[in-house]
Amino acid sequence: MRITITLTSDFGLKDPYVAEMKGVILRINPNATIVDITHQIGKFDVRAAAFALASAAPYFPDGTVHLAVADPRVGTERRAIVVQTKRGFFVGPDNGILVLAAQSQGIEHAYLLANPKFMMPRVSGTFHGRDIFAPAAAFLDKGIQPAEFGSEVKEPIAPEFAKVKFSSGLLTGEVLDVDGFGNVITNINEKDLFFGEGKEFDVELAIAKLKIPFRKTYAQVKPKEPIILIGSHGFLEIALNQDSAAEKFNLKAGDKIKVKVA
Amino acid sequence: MRITITLTSDFGLKDPYVAEMKGVILRINPNATIVDITHQIGKFDVRAAAFALASAAPYFPDGTVHLAVADPRVGTERRAIVVQTKRGFFVGPDNGILVLAAQSQGIEHAYLLANPKFMMPRVSGTFHGRDIFAPAAAFLDKGIQPAEFGSEVKEPIAPEFAKVKFSSGLLTGEVLDVDGFGNVITNINEKDLFFGEGKEFDVELAIAKLKIPFRKTYAQVKPKEPIILIGSHGFLEIALNQDSAAEKFNLKAGDKIKVKVA
Amino acid sequence: MRITITLTSDFGLKDPYVAEMKGVILRINPNATIVDITHQIGKFDVRAAAFALASAAPYFPDGTVHLAVADPRVGTERRAIVVQTKRGFFVGPDNGILVLAAQSQGIEHAYLLANPKFMMPRVSGTFHGRDIFAPAAAFLDKGIQPAEFGSEVKEPIAPEFAKVKFSSGLLTGEVLDVDGFGNVITNINEKDLFFGEGKEFDVELAIAKLKIPFRKTYAQVKPKEPIILIGSHGFLEIALNQDSAAEKFNLKAGDKIKVKVA
Repeated sequence: MRITITLTSDFGLKDPYVAEMKGVILRINPNATIVDITHQIGKFDVRAAAFALASAAPYFPDGTVHLAVADPRVGTERRAIVVQTKRGFFVGPDNGILVLAAQSQGIEHAYLLANPKFMMPRVSGTFHGRDIFAPAAAFLDKGIQPAEFGSEVKEPIAPEFAKVKFSSGLLTGEVLDVDGFGNVITNINEKDLFFGEGKEFDVELAIAKLKIPFRKTYAQVKPKEPIILIGSHGFLEIALNQDSAAEKFNLKAGDKIKVKVA
Repeated sequence: MRITITLTSDFGLKDPYVAEMKGVILRINPNATIVDITHQIGKFDVRAAAFALASAAPYFPDGTVHLAVADPRVGTERRAIVVQTKRGFFVGPDNGILVLAAQSQGIEHAYLLANPKFMMPRVSGTFHGRDIFAPAAAFLDKGIQPAEFGSEVKEPIAPEFAKVKFSSGLLTGEVLDVDGFGNVITNINEKDLFFGEGKEFDVELAIAKLKIPFRKTYAQVKPKEPIILIGSHGFLEIALNQDSAAEKFNLKAGDKIKVKVA
Repeated sequence: MRITITLTSDFGLKDPYVAEMKGVILRINPNATIVDITHQIGKFDVRAAAFALASAAPYFPDGTVHLAVADPRVGTERRAIVVQTKRGFFVGPDNGILVLAAQSQGIEHAYLLANPKFMMPRVSGTFHGRDIFAPAAAFLDKGIQPAEFGSEVKEPIAPEFAKVKFSSGLLTGEVLDVDGFGNVITNINEKDLFFGEGKEFDVELAIAKLKIPFRKTYAQVKPKEPIILIGSHGFLEIALNQDSAAEKFNLKAGDKIKVKVA
């Protein structure tokens, strides 16, 4: 049985950087199955990378090694770590990119990536994805124990996401991400909601008060009409049927969202 | 010997959606070889997805499972199906996306994807690519018989493409696709043509009458000069050498094309 | 142990062309591990493809077969070749795309791809990536000897890159590439430099005289501040911390760069 390594980064697909990481992995472990989560994270957007990784990781097999890099402080004193969970491993900079995904699997330990035996012979100052994280992922995949990489890290850094608040009948959250369809994904979880399907809500956005129907899927409203639903990751989503809600409502990651039951 | 699963979608590469399908497949079948055909189909453009899939499928090994999703009616009453051909399997929504490619392999049977045993435990209303199609592809790849997924579907939906017409010396077809080079691919097949290489044709486009040489490859005319040829999929193509014919002639998918022998 | 085939092209990811090459490879060799280096080379930009391939190839395992296509003269008299090096194989058009990468591995022989036994049964005039190069790569991967493809080619074509010059205290080079971060990668190698880390240089660009600090990594200057460093491939790089130096200094591939020690 072959083990999977996933890659998440802000490297884009134009440059050879992602391929270099894959080459390094295959040199150490020719049987690795490598899957891209995405390389089109906004440059240095650690939060967006953390969210993409946390979205995709639950669907991968037990034992998967997840490598993630959006690393504005590469080559400085920021730490390189591996986080071991009940279901797998997360490798990358200790800047919050790993912990959202790792927490949902149950974190067991975290260790520094400090052992030069598991790095490229020459480590550049600017590309730890290739020189430190890729070899670490490949060696983990081959069965090297995470404790062999370095000393234990007690509190790996968690990314900051706003907490959903509820007061006087209003749920206040924020936009986590806008996907390629223009769907606006909020941090309001289905568990935060206490109203059933078919109800209509008043949704207060920063820009307008709108009454939007809450349904199960996009095509339950007419094309270009707004809808609110629980998206495929369990978060409340503001969408248009076959069009971009982000454009129509001028929303982007980080914007505040208020939801009121009508 | 490892079996191949191909993926075609309008999901783009920015979001984690494609990776989630791959994770689901690898959880069920860690030995699957997964190949992306494209994920940059125009949003909800079922016809373009059908064309891309039909272009690529002939080059894949016997037994390949092709998963395709451009699915404006996800979560509604539209059916989810598997089409079994003489050479492989096609999995996706029953909206025309599968049948163009499947027909050219010889369709044997089609079945509903209705058996929850071969779905994710919890099926979302908005992401059947991950929750229904990906597990179906992985189980087919493991040898599950297509009839185990559900009852037979007698007439899976075929996509609508204009037929090529010939009258009074004029071939009338339409633009199937514009590729990344700006080459304009029409639905006029080389079998529709009865003139040989080296001849010059009069080509009537909607916007202009042009006399364009018919040759074998782009570099047989000067850079930026127009040429007509039979492209690598057997269709008549309007191109410029090293430049975009689509831009120069303002052509897009669906536009009418008339060709007249000079 | 599975052998790797890499793919580099200007085909983009929207069209099914890359997938067709992969299908052809997997039909011949179902156990191939296929890795994309990039398919977003500028259309027909042979030099940029040569540079991307030369950047990534050193990181791949011994025995890797590298297929590269940016092929403005496909279907004409330009030759199709395989270059055998001390560490692997390079397959593509004989237009300079292969030799930069191959040279750094030590070229042993080059041969024509002329044997129809190792091509698609029907070779199109416009898509040799699929019809000639992909089958050649797959057969090499299966152990076919390169001499079986055709007669020896004595001098495969090398790409033209400007040489770095040094006179009266000034190093003169050129921009090789601008990466997705806007970092400006020059052809000035770290061996061309004789000054140590921490020094400050005067860098004369075509557009402005600037005094830019020479450091090890981006975050050693403030966000949006300029820095010069040795990038991860050993070349002098002009960068901004977390912003685009190419945009700020209006630089692109081919532009002249002059560096003067302060």
